[in-house]
Amino acid sequence: MLTGTQIANFQVEPNWSHGLQFTPRWGEIDTYGHVNHGAYFVWCEEVRIAYFKTLGEPPFSPDSPGPVIRDIGFEYMRAVSPTDEVLVTGRVTWIRRSSFRMEYAAWTDGLVGRGHATCIWYINNMKATAPLPDDLRRKIIALDGSEDRTTPKND
Amino acid sequence: MLTGTQIANFQVEPNWSHGLQFTPRWGEIDTYGHVNHGAYFVWCEEVRIAYFKTLGEPPFSPDSPGPVIRDIGFEYMRAVSPTDEVLVTGRVTWIRRSSFRMEYAAWTDGLVGRGHATCIWYINNMKATAPLPDDLRRKIIALDGSEDRTTPKND
Amino acid sequence: MLTGTQIANFQVEPNWSHGLQFTPRWGEIDTYGHVNHGAYFVWCEEVRIAYFKTLGEPPFSPDSPGPVIRDIGFEYMRAVSPTDEVLVTGRVTWIRRSSFRMEYAAWTDGLVGRGHATCIWYINNMKATAPLPDDLRRKIIALDGSEDRTTPKND
Amino acid sequence: MLTGTQIANFQVEPNWSHGLQFTPRWGEIDTYGHVNHGAYFVWCEEVRIAYFKTLGEPPFSPDSPGPVIRDIGFEYMRAVSPTDEVLVTGRVTWIRRSSFRMEYAAWTDGLVGRGHATCIWYINNMKATAPLPDDLRRKIIALDGSEDRTTPKND
Repeated sequence: MLTGTQIANFQVEPNWSHGLQFTPRWGEIDTYGHVNHGAYFVWCEEVRIAYFKTLGEPPFSPDSPGPVIRDIGFEYMRAVSPTDEVLVTGRVTWIRRSSFRMEYAAWTDGLVGRGHATCIWYINNMKATAPLPDDLRRKIIALDGSEDRTTPKND
Repeated sequence: MLTGTQIANFQVEPNWSHGLQFTPRWGEIDTYGHVNHGAYFVWCEEVRIAYFKTLGEPPFSPDSPGPVIRDIGFEYMRAVSPTDEVLVTGRVTWIRRSSFRMEYAAWTDGLVGRGHATCIWYINNMKATAPLPDDLRRKIIALDGSEDRTTPKND
Repeated sequence: MLTGTQIANFQVEPNWSHGLQFTPRWGEIDTYGHVNHGAYFVWCEEVRIAYFKTLGEPPFSPDSPGPVIRDIGFEYMRAVSPTDEVLVTGRVTWIRRSSFRMEYAAWTDGLVGRGHATCIWYINNMKATAPLPDDLRRKIIALDGSEDRTTPKND
Repeated sequence: MLTGTQIANFQVEPNWSHGLQFTPRWGEIDTYGHVNHGAYFVWCEEVRIAYFKTLGEPPFSPDSPGPVIRDIGFEYMRAVSPTDEVLVTGRVTWIRRSSFRMEYAAWTDGLVGRGHATCIWYINNMKATAPLPDDLRRKIIALDGSEDRTTPKND
């Protein structure tokens, strides 16, 4: 959960509850001297995994259901320099029977980038989708006010 | 430039001229046993850099103009396994005075994913955009039939 | 600087003053389900950079002196699992005019691995070694009790 | 297997039979403008995996035996620039019942670095070592002239 100090220091806008703080690594700075665009996807991945851990889910493994990316994107609004501390926040905006959309934002002294991922709830070893458990769904909606798009038919 | 063999083996659809072949690395396979979604962005980055090298541009550096990502995205249509060989193709679909859009596609035995990036032509050390050189613009349009969206005003 | 809590929780042995804590990232776990051996080098790199930052050095850049690796190694004593928190410590064991040796150790509930790097103090853009500044040398020796191997002749 | 052209172009010294060629990736170049020391470990990993593939071993997985790193190191003799093509060679110098030592060398126009890894043959899901299969042992020795250190007692 974000703290009041984090929200103030990084100037996080309302409606974000979850996030992780990152110090750019040497290997995340590229020849141009700024954080490489790929680092944000690694950070979002960590935010996504921590999100489910925070909600009480066990660690993801190949033989139990977990999120698999269907599509993902990121928009870079300002370059992040090696000395910036970065907060990356994540929230679920909608949820279906076995998929959901997560949005991300990156903050230093205000917003520097934002992204999104559509994920399916998937058992890798079985190559099969699985429904999101009801209690997990309830916790997500309670945390983020996510739109519940579940219908009997859709995924 | 793609060879006829590559086009046949990977079942590449028409209108792609440029690409690179990748063998998934051990570090690109994640706990789920498939290629991690982040690897595709690394591959697209290599395709983008090779694209400009192929067109005769010098290596990119902090004090000369080169592409910086404004936004980027990827859609995953099928998982890629550790033993798949992957061809990633890239082409410029439109070009403005100092920005362009590149599209990507990943192929094993047919299409397995596709992506895009909007890039600005940018001098990192000066924190300033630069116009794409005319001869580079001409070569891009000659190669990919890119739409020329240059106007006196826009970027 | 390590805290008493870190020293107790990770069961750190005496004579380590500096370190950073890491939560293994999803991308650092490989197909085998444990932390990939390469992640430790990334962690040691972050520990090394933070070490100099802690001693008051400015961020490293291509045109000012900084550490460049001459040789590096790591020994893995126990596998680290995705749910382990890892503390990586670093200290300088000897220092010459323009080179030094850093040792590393990784801890979860006791020692899980150890490594070392010999670094030269080097200006990348000039392709030239530089002497370690005297005040930096003094701070290193004060922190770690490093052996001073400086002689008029050696590097 | 190395080709005569590779051996000539990269000025490879005698007694290396196996290797892979790498074009440094954008993400492998760090702020200093040269290939980061960590990239060599990724390249050695690929060389190691390709070595066993070349000898007919199936892809490594958590529930079958494969190489796990006990210790690893690398010595950097010359910096590699973004425009260098790099050949990394690997060979097994000795082999025991369930462990072996692999040596590596990196070449551009001659030797630029060398490394080594001691590996155990290990089933990750069982957390147990396994003996190297006899036919694999024979193929390794036939390829590299590796010293056979197998005794009834040792590992």
